[in-house]
Amino acid sequence: MSSPTSLDSPRGGTRRWEQIAAALRADIASGHFAPGSRLPNESLLAERFGVNRHTLRQAVQALTREGFVNVRQGSGTWVRELVLDYALQKRTRLSENLAEAGERAERELLAQESGRPAGPWAQALKISAGSRIELLYTRSSVRGRPISLSTAAYPSARLAGMAEAFLRERSITAALRSLGVGDYTRLRSSISARLPTPDEADALARPVTQPVLVVNYTNVDAQGVPVEAACTLFAADAVQLQVDTGEALA
Amino acid sequence: MSSPTSLDSPRGGTRRWEQIAAALRADIASGHFAPGSRLPNESLLAERFGVNRHTLRQAVQALTREGFVNVRQGSGTWVRELVLDYALQKRTRLSENLAEAGERAERELLAQESGRPAGPWAQALKISAGSRIELLYTRSSVRGRPISLSTAAYPSARLAGMAEAFLRERSITAALRSLGVGDYTRLRSSISARLPTPDEADALARPVTQPVLVVNYTNVDAQGVPVEAACTLFAADAVQLQVDTGEALA
Repeated sequence: MSSPTSLDSPRGGTRRWEQIAAALRADIASGHFAPGSRLPNESLLAERFGVNRHTLRQAVQALTREGFVNVRQGSGTWVRELVLDYALQKRTRLSENLAEAGERAERELLAQESGRPAGPWAQALKISAGSRIELLYTRSSVRGRPISLSTAAYPSARLAGMAEAFLRERSITAALRSLGVGDYTRLRSSISARLPTPDEADALARPVTQPVLVVNYTNVDAQGVPVEAACTLFAADAVQLQVDTGEALA
Repeated sequence: MSSPTSLDSPRGGTRRWEQIAAALRADIASGHFAPGSRLPNESLLAERFGVNRHTLRQAVQALTREGFVNVRQGSGTWVRELVLDYALQKRTRLSENLAEAGERAERELLAQESGRPAGPWAQALKISAGSRIELLYTRSSVRGRPISLSTAAYPSARLAGMAEAFLRERSITAALRSLGVGDYTRLRSSISARLPTPDEADALARPVTQPVLVVNYTNVDAQGVPVEAACTLFAADAVQLQVDTGEALA
């Protein structure tokens, strides 16, 4: 564990609370204040930075708004679990989204079903309900901590062997590429939230009282043909979804 | 309460379970099966439609996937609260999103603060932390049922009188227009989920165990200058966020 960031050289033009927020951010990033741990109380922090509690509170409010910490009524301020920004965009890739955050995802195959009827997945994949699909159940973790569970369906006619390809390539993108899908793009994402079932909570190593973000989505190939329909549950304490709609203004 | 939809004239080319799903959808839309109520059990429904339970189950699975109903382990199938699709797009407008679903939102002002320091809202609005803002706390309802709570900040220098304009115009878009912001677009949205505080749950008329979707966003004017920074809590049983990233393929 590193030592706390000091504020020896305040730079001109920056407010005191902004400097403190920056120092606390650095302490969280370095692991001095670990994810899931409680921050020292206001009086101690105010003393450390040599400011009054009002100034300190402004810094903590900024960190709360930015998602670095949570204030829990009656029990202090807690460093949020690893909060990852997950961009929902035309090319949505788990590994690239995490690389942006300087992190690396480990994705493991929990279970699979090969050649079962498409049923409820048929519509999104634009195949008949009796057509066969490959179902992959995967879990993604960052720094050994689960962040998401996915159930993904692939048309068997085109992508039989998807599970084996995933086990070989260790990535959905690479597996699809090895089966001839050179590129794919996200058509749409539908986002909701709910509490996890006991099994889901268990797989995410979280309490059943911690909500999950539920993202249903479809990926299509360069010709617009669906290659993947999936539902991902993100641990909402670890992942924030980002939607950028301002590109045209840049 | 209307009478249930009959299946007297099955159309050719549609599977039986699809017809049943369509009939159940119509019954939910008409209020015959009300939001928050439990569907009759499988045997009764199978009997009503004159099909076996397997066929009925296919229809219910389709409705589950589409978000019309929830299957709760051990307690049957429940009609979901009014599920509204809320598109996160360049021009994100509450009223237009609900009009798409054939619904109308009532938005009420719960509280306001005028001329307070921007503090944590400064960054998103690109003003200094000491600049003044107008804060509006609003609640939106559909058919008399709360669906969301918003806290929205506007720069006082440009938009003093925002609260009065909202009370006069009954819409954020119209209020901004009356204060000289003819058009605005969404720059970005950040989406997370959590359980509501007791006060939030109370304002949404829901239990504290029902998660909320938390959307932080910024709207800018035609020149790209921020005019609104806000945080909206959506009751996750009532609203699904939609992100369309497939336009370029059309």
